[in-house]
Amino acid sequence: MVQQHKLITMPLAELEHVIINGRTTGERSPLTLFWSGSGIELHTTGSQLELEVETDYDHAEQWLSIWINGVQVSRLMLQKGRNWLTLFRGMNPEKVKHVQVVKEVQPMGADQLSLLQFHALRGDGRLQPVASKPVRLEFIGDSITSGEGGIGAREEEDWIPMWFSASDSYAKLTADALGADYRVISQSGWGMLSSWDNNPNHAIPLYYEQVCGVLTGERHKQLGAQQAYQFATWQPHVVVINLATNDYSAFHQPAWKDEASGQLYKQRLLPDGSFHPDDLARFELAVQQFLEKLRSCNPDAHLLWAYGMLGTPMLPAIYRAVDRYMQQSGDRKVSVFQLPSMTDATTGARSHPGKLAHAKAAEELAGYIAELLH
Amino acid sequence: MVQQHKLITMPLAELEHVIINGRTTGERSPLTLFWSGSGIELHTTGSQLELEVETDYDHAEQWLSIWINGVQVSRLMLQKGRNWLTLFRGMNPEKVKHVQVVKEVQPMGADQLSLLQFHALRGDGRLQPVASKPVRLEFIGDSITSGEGGIGAREEEDWIPMWFSASDSYAKLTADALGADYRVISQSGWGMLSSWDNNPNHAIPLYYEQVCGVLTGERHKQLGAQQAYQFATWQPHVVVINLATNDYSAFHQPAWKDEASGQLYKQRLLPDGSFHPDDLARFELAVQQFLEKLRSCNPDAHLLWAYGMLGTPMLPAIYRAVDRYMQQSGDRKVSVFQLPSMTDATTGARSHPGKLAHAKAAEELAGYIAELLH
Amino acid sequence: MVQQHKLITMPLAELEHVIINGRTTGERSPLTLFWSGSGIELHTTGSQLELEVETDYDHAEQWLSIWINGVQVSRLMLQKGRNWLTLFRGMNPEKVKHVQVVKEVQPMGADQLSLLQFHALRGDGRLQPVASKPVRLEFIGDSITSGEGGIGAREEEDWIPMWFSASDSYAKLTADALGADYRVISQSGWGMLSSWDNNPNHAIPLYYEQVCGVLTGERHKQLGAQQAYQFATWQPHVVVINLATNDYSAFHQPAWKDEASGQLYKQRLLPDGSFHPDDLARFELAVQQFLEKLRSCNPDAHLLWAYGMLGTPMLPAIYRAVDRYMQQSGDRKVSVFQLPSMTDATTGARSHPGKLAHAKAAEELAGYIAELLH
Amino acid sequence: MVQQHKLITMPLAELEHVIINGRTTGERSPLTLFWSGSGIELHTTGSQLELEVETDYDHAEQWLSIWINGVQVSRLMLQKGRNWLTLFRGMNPEKVKHVQVVKEVQPMGADQLSLLQFHALRGDGRLQPVASKPVRLEFIGDSITSGEGGIGAREEEDWIPMWFSASDSYAKLTADALGADYRVISQSGWGMLSSWDNNPNHAIPLYYEQVCGVLTGERHKQLGAQQAYQFATWQPHVVVINLATNDYSAFHQPAWKDEASGQLYKQRLLPDGSFHPDDLARFELAVQQFLEKLRSCNPDAHLLWAYGMLGTPMLPAIYRAVDRYMQQSGDRKVSVFQLPSMTDATTGARSHPGKLAHAKAAEELAGYIAELLH
Repeated sequence: MVQQHKLITMPLAELEHVIINGRTTGERSPLTLFWSGSGIELHTTGSQLELEVETDYDHAEQWLSIWINGVQVSRLMLQKGRNWLTLFRGMNPEKVKHVQVVKEVQPMGADQLSLLQFHALRGDGRLQPVASKPVRLEFIGDSITSGEGGIGAREEEDWIPMWFSASDSYAKLTADALGADYRVISQSGWGMLSSWDNNPNHAIPLYYEQVCGVLTGERHKQLGAQQAYQFATWQPHVVVINLATNDYSAFHQPAWKDEASGQLYKQRLLPDGSFHPDDLARFELAVQQFLEKLRSCNPDAHLLWAYGMLGTPMLPAIYRAVDRYMQQSGDRKVSVFQLPSMTDATTGARSHPGKLAHAKAAEELAGYIAELLH
Repeated sequence: MVQQHKLITMPLAELEHVIINGRTTGERSPLTLFWSGSGIELHTTGSQLELEVETDYDHAEQWLSIWINGVQVSRLMLQKGRNWLTLFRGMNPEKVKHVQVVKEVQPMGADQLSLLQFHALRGDGRLQPVASKPVRLEFIGDSITSGEGGIGAREEEDWIPMWFSASDSYAKLTADALGADYRVISQSGWGMLSSWDNNPNHAIPLYYEQVCGVLTGERHKQLGAQQAYQFATWQPHVVVINLATNDYSAFHQPAWKDEASGQLYKQRLLPDGSFHPDDLARFELAVQQFLEKLRSCNPDAHLLWAYGMLGTPMLPAIYRAVDRYMQQSGDRKVSVFQLPSMTDATTGARSHPGKLAHAKAAEELAGYIAELLH
Repeated sequence: MVQQHKLITMPLAELEHVIINGRTTGERSPLTLFWSGSGIELHTTGSQLELEVETDYDHAEQWLSIWINGVQVSRLMLQKGRNWLTLFRGMNPEKVKHVQVVKEVQPMGADQLSLLQFHALRGDGRLQPVASKPVRLEFIGDSITSGEGGIGAREEEDWIPMWFSASDSYAKLTADALGADYRVISQSGWGMLSSWDNNPNHAIPLYYEQVCGVLTGERHKQLGAQQAYQFATWQPHVVVINLATNDYSAFHQPAWKDEASGQLYKQRLLPDGSFHPDDLARFELAVQQFLEKLRSCNPDAHLLWAYGMLGTPMLPAIYRAVDRYMQQSGDRKVSVFQLPSMTDATTGARSHPGKLAHAKAAEELAGYIAELLH
Repeated sequence: MVQQHKLITMPLAELEHVIINGRTTGERSPLTLFWSGSGIELHTTGSQLELEVETDYDHAEQWLSIWINGVQVSRLMLQKGRNWLTLFRGMNPEKVKHVQVVKEVQPMGADQLSLLQFHALRGDGRLQPVASKPVRLEFIGDSITSGEGGIGAREEEDWIPMWFSASDSYAKLTADALGADYRVISQSGWGMLSSWDNNPNHAIPLYYEQVCGVLTGERHKQLGAQQAYQFATWQPHVVVINLATNDYSAFHQPAWKDEASGQLYKQRLLPDGSFHPDDLARFELAVQQFLEKLRSCNPDAHLLWAYGMLGTPMLPAIYRAVDRYMQQSGDRKVSVFQLPSMTDATTGARSHPGKLAHAKAAEELAGYIAELLH
């Protein structure tokens, strides 16, 4: 066991060589993490390294994973409060280690206290420059992109943070396969036009331009969740949009009532079980408008609608909307890609895609994106 | 998110329905865990469950993994002291969960302070009876059986607890494939006759009859590590012995000097590079005597020498020794099984078998044991 | 070795229990086989069975495979002339064997002499009734559906019958996975609107209603290739259309000149490399019209456009055309499915999908069709 | 389709650049093939190549496979008589093709007429020199090494040539993995000391020094099957002996009676079901003596006993015998390797190892031999 040197505490704000993964504000004292797959990444010498983590919650606790030299060595539920988390101990002090800390869970909007912050590092080594990755990918989605059910037994049915796994999600696997940095904007149950239960406020496009607009609590506002996101600081090469799965559910769920206004919202089916054309048109218009917004925020990115891990019923509508957007805009850097469907053998927890389904989707998607990037 | 009931603290000593995995003493206030793969297993209702864990160390920290309904949901390095570790939160209180907590690391004899104890459970559910598993397996081995290198990047070279993974070891995988309860006695670097560096005190047979005789510190003595193990309480159906890998190394290492007596110990090679027949004979005699000891401790078990994950140079000697033991004893319930060798594609950390090598070994071994148990 | 009984010659025309696979005429004296994957299938007792085969060609020879109890036991190039081919010998005469003989190659229109006929069976057993399969699939396609490159080394570049493998094609694999009878209409290089080199006569829809209209030689006419196909005799549950790959090539190839009329045919690109809208519209109209024809021929079938094994550039146009067809017709039993793209690891001969690419496509497609058939 | 040049007939005897695979006599006019996996191998230009094959049999017909550029393109049952077999047609005449023709079946001693000969090649190309492979392997075995059951449905029970597949055997797969030339000496049902049914004449060692001594018919004698094999012409680097599986069966089968002498032969079990020590000793002595013979025939080869695909009950005896041989001879280039056992998932026809079992055995064995050859 290596004799460690004296540990030095280094506030994150003072550290040049720490890469921040995921959308966040410019604040580094402390660094607040919002999204699934966000975290930090660094190269360092030293025998030991610790991370000062602060977390809070009412009911939806935080989970982190720790990766050393590309291998996940730990995944853990965080205890409330401000604590030092050991990332590694007893290692050869001379050698450079690649370290990642990944937030495994999505923003938990229903938990007003939900908080994850990194304050400082403490160690006996010296951080090394990390070359920034040559490709940047943004993933916009729902529970699938949040890795819900990516971990856990098939029989699990509870909606709890434990079953979320950013590390098993196709988003991380696709980025890793392409050597890419990536950011995720995703919320379980949400969609293009509404959530699975017809709530029109749970539509991702409404919040796309904020740092993490889906968090609306007072604490989150103070943390800057609703600030305008500075798109210029991180322009993706490809924006992957994996939305529509919950929009399909909305057609099969009861209306959602806005308690304030009394208004009802509902995507309707015709008596023969097909989509009501007016409601389908609303969905398509939402897709078209979201593409416009994405383009204005990401002038050079390829916009890629990737859909199908839980079936493809909305694919014709997506194709129509994308087509209309392309016709009207003249924009050519847009396409649609059908992801392979989860099968009985690849189902994970909560009837969601499991590790194998995510791995398969990532393999296909990474192959397609590699062609785009040629 | 489920509203939890009041949490009740339940000392382990008072709990009837907690299965203790791994060799330990009769003491339950608290329960001390010694060996790789040891831990607890239970079935319970309730929305939340916590485990009171106490740990200490000088340099070799403890690691645990948590399994819910057969899936590993967490693996973490423990912080020193006595703390409550949440096993699950927010689950459907009515449903019964299968929970396992597994010690990921082997006994760390070089760390005199090394300690892992479980004091109590705290939760809002009710423990359920767990049917004891119909098959019991004991695994005796070295670093391979301790799962050293089962986790971690190939480039890792540090000898640290982080790279030990009971959960990835062929021992756990074999037991799981057969639905068996299992116990592990293993020490990295140790062998039949001596350790990899010719130290004759680091021979597993010397300590086989104690609870955990390989721990010799004062603290460990007080915890009962050196007590006689009560074989009658848990008789295995099969004893798997995976030793000889370090005995082979001893032939290629310098002599070990007993500083007290000044005596040198060395397994010698002949000038042509082959084993010195006298030293090979000493190894074989040790195998033969160990089989006698194993038989006397485990009257009905099948004794199975399983060897080969890091090559098979000692296999002829093992066969000879087993043969001689069988001839002299008339014992028929003994056999030898060659495990598949690690390949370039299945190498893990520290030049040891990785997850894939363990999985392959477990598949073959479980098939062989299934035939034995017919 | 079993002593065989006297062999009896049985003209195919007199045999009730032989299932004919693939489109053909009503003629059975002899039976002419035209399409890839066509052949016969039977259950029989007896120790030995032979098939009287007649074949001819100028340069494009015929290949057959023989399957016994679901396993391919032989694949062979046929010698010209009329010969007895042994299907099995020396088997237990009492047991019933399932036997299939499969034409491995597509219709070879460029070879005016091309001929494959089965005259009679000869054996010592008794044919047994075969229950007809509950699902019927029709596959319409190009070289991919013909299994071109499904066998052979990656370096192969010759366009010869040897590299065609009906048995490795996704069509057979999909049908087998679903326990379905299937028929194939496919020609290497052909498309919806034209062939890969803009020849408008090499468009599958022109010949869809004939038995095998793609064969236009005098001999083929006499054999009935150009007869109207009797759709009523075999109505598929699903029609899979895998066309567009060559239509994409046509945009990138020189014009094709009709030597008779002097007219040039060409799918054009715009200066910026995108499809000329008029020509893309012609393609889409062709898709739409083909769907109308398919519907009129197959009133109850699900029409499934499955495309993507060599990339997806035509998918938006296919979606548009299918959409327009559905809007105008009100037909709901139509959908589009993106097949997984061939990768570097799954490439076969002649830069075409290899066995692994076909197997992967079949797995995904069979999963999708299974849902349709629910 | 390429226009072929005039075909030239080339007697094999006059061809310098044809590699002969497998043990045979020095005769090339014609070349007689005896053993499983034997055949020819060549590199050639030209558009077309044919092979003049002569075959005969009473009941056990011959099967060949044809490989072009490393891919099996055909496998077929041969018709009696002397015929030209087309190996390829219509290929680019300029390019060099690698062509192999492989005898799929073992010597069929029970069929006195059994015959396979190659007379000549006919083609329009020019043979090219083939570099001889740097490694040579000899495989000595029984049905497993003959690839019996490597092809065919699991339900097959007939003992017929159709279920033999040299191409799927671990012997070919191991040789291919190592880029090695290989020769096979194997007979289904035969063993070290006797066949599965105690016939002492069906012991491979009795015939090891002849070209193909297991063929004893008058025709075979005239073909030179019983000639002394010229070991000096082809010295293997490794001799793999996979015998003992049928010797185990002999313990469980009735005695075999030599009708001439009236003598009974039987490997006996003791009342408790274990091997009779005298009979086991006879087996071990036979192993020891065979090793002596192998060494005298192959002075520099590593002798490798590889056993276990259908279980390992004889492994201790093999180890004992090998050990005794090594002790008495001082020979060090001898070892034992346990092959992975066939499982339910890898079973082929006739309860023998299927393709997957052979592939797995070959992977392990090739890894072990690669180490030996270092």
